Formats: sequence, structure tokens, C-alpha cells
Amino acid sequence: MGYKKIDKDDIAYIKGIIGDDERILIGDFINEEYSHDELSGTSSYPDIVVKAKSAKEISEVMKYAFKHVIPVTPRGAGTGLVGSSVAIEHGIMIDTTLMNQVLELDEDNLTITVEPGVLLMELSAYVEDHDLFYPPDPGEKSATIGGNISTNAGGMRAVKYGVTRDYVRGLEVVLPSGEITEFGGKVVKNSSGYALKDLMIGAEGTLGFITKAILKLIPRPKFVISLLIPFPTLDHAINTVPLIVKSKTIPTAIEFMQREVIIDAEQYLGKTFPDKQSDAYLLLKFDGNSLEEIEKAYDSVAKLCLEQGALDVLISDTEEREDSIWKARGAFLEAIKGSTTYMDEVDMVVPRSSVNEMVTYLHSLQEECDLRIKSFGHAGDGNLHAYMLKDDLNDEEWEKRMNKAMEKVYAKARNLGGQVSGEHGIGFAKKPYLRGSLPEVNLNLMNGIKKVYDPNNILNPHKIAQM
Amino acid sequence: MGYKKIDKDDIAYIKGIIGDDERILIGDFINEEYSHDELSGTSSYPDIVVKAKSAKEISEVMKYAFKHVIPVTPRGAGTGLVGSSVAIEHGIMIDTTLMNQVLELDEDNLTITVEPGVLLMELSAYVEDHDLFYPPDPGEKSATIGGNISTNAGGMRAVKYGVTRDYVRGLEVVLPSGEITEFGGKVVKNSSGYALKDLMIGAEGTLGFITKAILKLIPRPKFVISLLIPFPTLDHAINTVPLIVKSKTIPTAIEFMQREVIIDAEQYLGKTFPDKQSDAYLLLKFDGNSLEEIEKAYDSVAKLCLEQGALDVLISDTEEREDSIWKARGAFLEAIKGSTTYMDEVDMVVPRSSVNEMVTYLHSLQEECDLRIKSFGHAGDGNLHAYMLKDDLNDEEWEKRMNKAMEKVYAKARNLGGQVSGEHGIGFAKKPYLRGSLPEVNLNLMNGIKKVYDPNNILNPHKIAQM
Repeated sequence: MGYKKIDKDDIAYIKGIIGDDERILIGDFINEEYSHDELSGTSSYPDIVVKAKSAKEISEVMKYAFKHVIPVTPRGAGTGLVGSSVAIEHGIMIDTTLMNQVLELDEDNLTITVEPGVLLMELSAYVEDHDLFYPPDPGEKSATIGGNISTNAGGMRAVKYGVTRDYVRGLEVVLPSGEITEFGGKVVKNSSGYALKDLMIGAEGTLGFITKAILKLIPRPKFVISLLIPFPTLDHAINTVPLIVKSKTIPTAIEFMQREVIIDAEQYLGKTFPDKQSDAYLLLKFDGNSLEEIEKAYDSVAKLCLEQGALDVLISDTEEREDSIWKARGAFLEAIKGSTTYMDEVDMVVPRSSVNEMVTYLHSLQEECDLRIKSFGHAGDGNLHAYMLKDDLNDEEWEKRMNKAMEKVYAKARNLGGQVSGEHGIGFAKKPYLRGSLPEVNLNLMNGIKKVYDPNNILNPHKIAQM
Repeated sequence: MGYKKIDKDDIAYIKGIIGDDERILIGDFINEEYSHDELSGTSSYPDIVVKAKSAKEISEVMKYAFKHVIPVTPRGAGTGLVGSSVAIEHGIMIDTTLMNQVLELDEDNLTITVEPGVLLMELSAYVEDHDLFYPPDPGEKSATIGGNISTNAGGMRAVKYGVTRDYVRGLEVVLPSGEITEFGGKVVKNSSGYALKDLMIGAEGTLGFITKAILKLIPRPKFVISLLIPFPTLDHAINTVPLIVKSKTIPTAIEFMQREVIIDAEQYLGKTFPDKQSDAYLLLKFDGNSLEEIEKAYDSVAKLCLEQGALDVLISDTEEREDSIWKARGAFLEAIKGSTTYMDEVDMVVPRSSVNEMVTYLHSLQEECDLRIKSFGHAGDGNLHAYMLKDDLNDEEWEKRMNKAMEKVYAKARNLGGQVSGEHGIGFAKKPYLRGSLPEVNLNLMNGIKKVYDPNNILNPHKIAQM
């Protein structure tokens, strides 16, 4: 690729920019964690890690990297699942976790301005203390908001509230050239030229470095109630979802789960789940500003579920029960990971009317590919997580079966009008499937755009549409 | 620019593609309306107008234009205000108004798939017949949905529901090369590469030709109530808006209006407005699924307004009154236009906490620039429409005063953290102000992206960021 290999002079120059040796790691001082993310199986060490504290520092490092054609990889909390934050070409890694300040809460405009390293859980807690609400709710609460924006993270409340994209009003960005600019702002509407802000969202750190974000908040709903609804079979459960959507009562979240995953979560958390009588569950959440309103909504949905053969409707109206249910749901990924030796994931999204067909297909694949597959996910928005488990397969057998199953799942998703990723992104690990899923002209547009932003291809190379 | 001038061979070829001479206009058969839009003062005739009926036809015309470097201008209902649909370089105009079919209503996925020439009012009526709701509500109901997507149209309900962007799930697009492709789909979430769908939204027909759109619907709110609230002064009215937002009760719409504009609308419509006692009004809308919920919301807001000095709170709970108020509101643009000889508009958007400062500034400008300026707009989302009226000024004096006032308004908007356009777009007429408002690097990125999509610059040239 013709990248410059980092040498002593580069390190000295970068040290000069940062001025604080504690915030620079090289060689053996680079923790193993910086070489991978949470799942993707991708591993590669950066030559130097810079723990940046300001857009200005990032800008100066980028300018230097731009001039000398040194690859740069942005990094938040490293909780990604597809290798977006792995330094494939080594070079410089810029870690934003020290840029973790809430800069302004603007209650007149209902916005919050944050640095990219603020964690999702910190953001939620902060705004809820002010009786406000940041709706996006990805399972991984210790991700940074910069990472959430970079993957357009979704989460469980997307059914009612949408995804991260819907809550980003403005961004400060350091471009690959090192220039600092802004896209959007505190404004609610904007038709002032191409949607550069939207293009940054979901770009997985390949077009620029997010150094500040202005996020939209809404008033915090006063009441939240969940329903845990056991069904005799998964078929029954999932077939009920389109009927709920069609009934014109939109819950905040509609999740589906199976007993085996619940049991994994119980073991992982050392906590008991409120119900295990059944093989399959829907978990619904309702929120709103009056109890009457919520009760009316969940009453009609509960009735509908019972008509469709639900075995019971468990109302979670205490904080304790609410906590135990959603903690379990939040732990599914880690719990499944803990139940096997190694795994890989699919984060496909299909039209929500096709969730049942996809889940049935996943079940049939277990036999066809002789591979254990566990799935759970956002039945209400069509975003399914399927995990293929290595268990005690040898490497060769695992690769063979897993690849076959992956190909088949993505082909099926494509046939159903779905997409490769609903919320985790493409990164490095899912590139072949993106290539198999999008028309070549779309991939060419993506690579063309990348070239406009980053002519020397120094920022997070080999990700998304790039070979 | 090196564009090929349309000749007989070109016309013959295009006639061969379309096969139906009724759908091709040339020379004197091109109606004067095709030479301009609703306001921008931009005027230029295309050499040929093609009334397309399918993506395939558009694709074939585009392929031919691409090969021969002939400019192409997309056109919907021609209701734009900034010259986006004017054929600056002549050439081919493709009119989509015959592509006006609703292709599918999918109640399982709550989506509707439409051709681009469906009018906003047709779309609304169609979905409301099915007890569903398409929330974006721009004032101009006879715009096409393709045009709405191309300007990322906003409208009055943005306070609660967002803008057009928030309701576009998928697009079929003919690229400048003539290739037909798709961005997005029926899926609710999507993190599968760069946001090409979002880039098309608000691109004003410069990156591709929208030939199909999959739109998100929501259940239709069962109840709607409006409040018309007279205040002693405009100051009182507008200063109350941030307090409403801060009170955490979010109305569907918050509009402000002044008596003089109301009187213009009465004259234009020949209909009486329910109240004219005061100089300044807030018009609020609330919707929801229970009357109690709405009443609770508007009670608390009404109380707040009265505490802030409102003279009265008029509840519009009959269809007739609702109709008379919102019809008047919908007619403001045409009414102001009818009250003067010529006008130009500003569609700026500022943080909503700055609306009062901007409106006060607009008032002071009338004197400073010796120019009549009328304004109204979306107080709840910071999107203000200011109209500069020529009245009986001679052309030279008008240009001088109008340009001075424009410069000052946009400079003020910039200082307040605002943007040039909230919902009307940039097109041809607002280009100088976009250039004055965005950093050069942003404009360069926009032009770079344009080049990726349209290397020969044939699709709608001279718009947005292009000189």
C-alpha cells in the first residue's frame, strides 16, 4: 500500500504534539486489548497508541499522518464486533476514551453536546438525572457514543424511537487531511447541501474522526412497563409480532428469546429469570407519560397475544423484576459467548414481516450445516442476531461449517429483502458479505466517496467496501 | 461546459425510447411553466421535456445523455422555491408527474411504496384511508413526494415527528450513468456501508433520479386538537416557545404568526380567520391516541402560555374551525405573494432558542434596509420563513435593498449557529449564501461527492455547491 512505517522520528514528533508521555503507548506497552475488538477474530497491533484529549491533538496527528501517509485507526471502547477499530495496517491508533466530557446540556433546545469518549451508560444516566431521555439503547452500554455514531448503533428501543442516526444533530469532525470541520448543528431541520452529517454516521471511522457530537434528547417518559409473554413455540411467538405492529399499537421494544439463551444468561449472571416454563418468549416494553395510556396499549397487545396462543402474560411492574428481565436480555451476547469455545455472529436485518421465516431457516440450518446456532434479537424491527458456535469442532471443520452457514444465512437475508448489518456495521469481518449483498455500483460509490475524503487512504483502511 | 446541444438526432433517439409522442415536448410545445419554479426568479427553458413513465425509460434517457454529455434536469410538480428544477443548461428535462402510482401498502411492515410523482396530498389521503399516517407535512401539498425527498422537506409537524428524511426507508435511483440501483429497503435498521440513501435525501436531484420510494408510516393518531393563542406582542409569543419545549410537553406543531399575515391569508382565501384581536399568535397542535392524554398536555401548555401573558386560549376542537385555521396557515406563502409585486424568501433554520432573537432582528431590518419583510414559521423547530417584498420599488432599488437584507439575515443566522435552509433547499438561488455559510472544506466534499456520482456533470448542473 505504500504506507510509511512508523519510526523513531514519527514517535518523537507525535510525542511533541501530545506533550504527555503517559498518553502515548509504544511497543510492549501497548496492551493486548488494542489488537482486537470484542468478537471479530481480527487481530493486528498498532505501532503507537495515542490517547487524545482534544480535536486539536487529533488534527495535528492526522496532519502529520496525512503528510507522511501513515495509517490511522480510530478507537473508542473497543466493544465493536466486526473489526472496525482494529489497526489492520498498524501505524497510529487514536484512542478517544479520555475525551469523555459532557460539554453542555441545553434544555432550551433539548440537546446535549458530548465528547466522543462518553460511554452510552454515562450519557443515559446523565440525561435521566435531568429528566430527559436519549432513546437509542444498544445492548453494550459500555460502548462510547463516538462508536455508537460510527456504527449507527440501534438497540432495543428502535421499534418506537429509531436508531442513533435519528438523534445526531451535529458533529465536529477531524478529516483525514487534519482539517477540523462541523456538519449539522443544533438545528432541528437542515436542507443546506448534501447530508455530510448523515454520511459520517455509520461510516465506521473511515471518513473522519468524530470529536464532538450534538445529540437530540426527548423528555423522559414517566412510566415504563414490560410484558414477558411465554408462547408454546417460537413460531407462535414470532408470528404474533406482525399482528402487534398491524394492530397499530407500537411498543417501545419487541424482543424474542428462547429458553436455552435465557438459561445461558442465568448461568452467566448467577441470577434467576422470572419465568422458564416455556420454550419461547416475547419481551415487550411500553413507555409513556400516563399510566392509563400504557395500560390501554399493553391490555390490547396482551389480549392479542393470548388470542394467538400465548400461555401467560407476566407484567413486570416492579423495578426489581424489570431489572432482572432486562439485565438478562442485556447479557445474552456475553452469555452465549461464555457457553462455547469460540463464535461468530450475524447481525442481519430483514423486513419485520420476514423474521419468522428467517428464524425458521436458522433452525433448519443447524441440522443442514451440523453447527450449533443460537439466535435472539429485535423481532420488532427485524434485526436478528444469530451466533454460530464452534464448541469442540477443530479449526478446519469449524471454518468449513461456519462459512457454509454464513453464506446461506446472508443469501437468505438477501432474498428476503434484507441487509448484511442492522446495527453492528461491516468493519473488516463482514466485507465479503457486503460485497455479496450490494450491487457493484453501490460499492463503487462508497469507495469513490472514501477517496474524496481520504485520497491517500490513511484513515482506517480496509474497512467496509474496501478490499 | 462542453455540453452537447440537443439536435434532431437526439430528439429522434429519445422519441424512440419513449415511443409515445404525446409524452415528449419540444420547442413551442414546452409550456412556460417548465421554465421556472414557484419563486426563485430563475428562468431557463429545456430543449426537450420527457414525461417519463418508468425507471427503465429514465435509465435509457440517462444512458444516452451520459454518453453524449447532455444535461438532464429532474422535475416533479415544479413547486420548488430555489430553482432546483430549472434547466439552467437547457438540454433534457424529465418530468415524473406521470409516475404517480402507489405501488404497495405493506401493513405488516408499515411501509408504503410509491412512484416519485405521487403528490403529498394524495399520499396523505391514501394512507389516512387505511388509518395510517405519513407525518411530514410541508405547506405545499401539491408537491410530489420525489421533490419532498429531494429537498428533505420538513413542514409543521417536525417538532414531534421529524422531517422527510426520517420517513424514507428505501429508494430506487437511476444514477447519472443510467444504471438503476437501490439504497436501503424495507428494513428498519441499516448499518451496511455508507449512508447512500441518506445522501440522496436532500440532494435536490443532483446525484441521481429517484424512481421509487419506500416510506415509513405510523399508526394514525386518533385525536388532534389545536390551540390558537393570542399574545399581546410577538415577543411574548415567541419567548414562550422555549418554555413549552423545556416543560417537556412536546406539541406536534408550534407555529407563530402575525395579524398582518393572517389578514393577507383571509383576503387570499376569502375566508374569515377565527380571531384577529391580537398582533401575534402561537398556533399549537397536539395529537395522540387518547383524549385524556392530549387534554393533559394542552392544559399544561395553555396554563404556561397564560402565565406568560397570553390573552386567551382558543381551543379548536371542531373540524370546521381546525380546517379554517390550518387552511389559513397553509396559504401564508401564496397570500404574501399575492400582497406584493414580487418577493424573495429566506428559509433559514436556527436553534429554537434563538427564534426570538432572529424575529426581532428581522423587524429591525425592515427599517434598516427600508424594505417590507414578512415572516412566519415553525417556531417549534427554529425554521423561519422571511419574505422580502418588492412592492413598488424599481428593479435596481429592489436588488440593492434585498441583497443587503439577505446578506444580513444569513450572517445573523450563521452567528446564531443556524443554517441557510431548513427545508426548501439550496438549488440555484441560494448558492451564494451556502458558500457564505459553510466552510470551504465542506463545499469541496460536496463537489467531490458530486463528481463521484456524475463525472461529466450532466445531472442538474449548477445546483447546491457547484458554481
